[in-house]
Amino acid sequence: MARVSGKTDADRQLRQLGEEIRVRRKSVGLSQEALAADAGIDRSHMGKIERGERNVTLLNVIKIAAALQCKASEILAEAGM
Amino acid sequence: MARVSGKTDADRQLRQLGEEIRVRRKSVGLSQEALAADAGIDRSHMGKIERGERNVTLLNVIKIAAALQCKASEILAEAGM
Repeated sequence: MARVSGKTDADRQLRQLGEEIRVRRKSVGLSQEALAADAGIDRSHMGKIERGERNVTLLNVIKIAAALQCKASEILAEAGM
Repeated sequence: MARVSGKTDADRQLRQLGEEIRVRRKSVGLSQEALAADAGIDRSHMGKIERGERNVTLLNVIKIAAALQCKASEILAEAGM
């Protein structure tokens, strides 16, 4: 099987992060809209982050983690990064 | 004391991340140029990341961590995030 290209690794990592954010959001009973508002992030951008469609910035990961009452490092660790 | 503005928190967090990357880079004996090359990041961009002047993206943090033979979550945790 040909070496998986960097692009595919990156897509997988972004999807894993988005999935972890979604799991944590649901576990604290927040809607995507409420999480976006609490984190100070545009709602549609938040949706793209959860779907792994955006190479999210560190500051946004930190704001999302704070809104989910956890640390950015915990989200990344749980997402395997 | 007036509430520290978000901007100042963000600046501090980016500087902390940059400092942690620098400490780890030096501990593995890499020059900034070598780390940038290993991580596939432009050298001057790497310098700005280490100085906390860039809101680094998740994928770049992951590439830097891989080049430093550690996990992105470990860098963030050590940097207090």
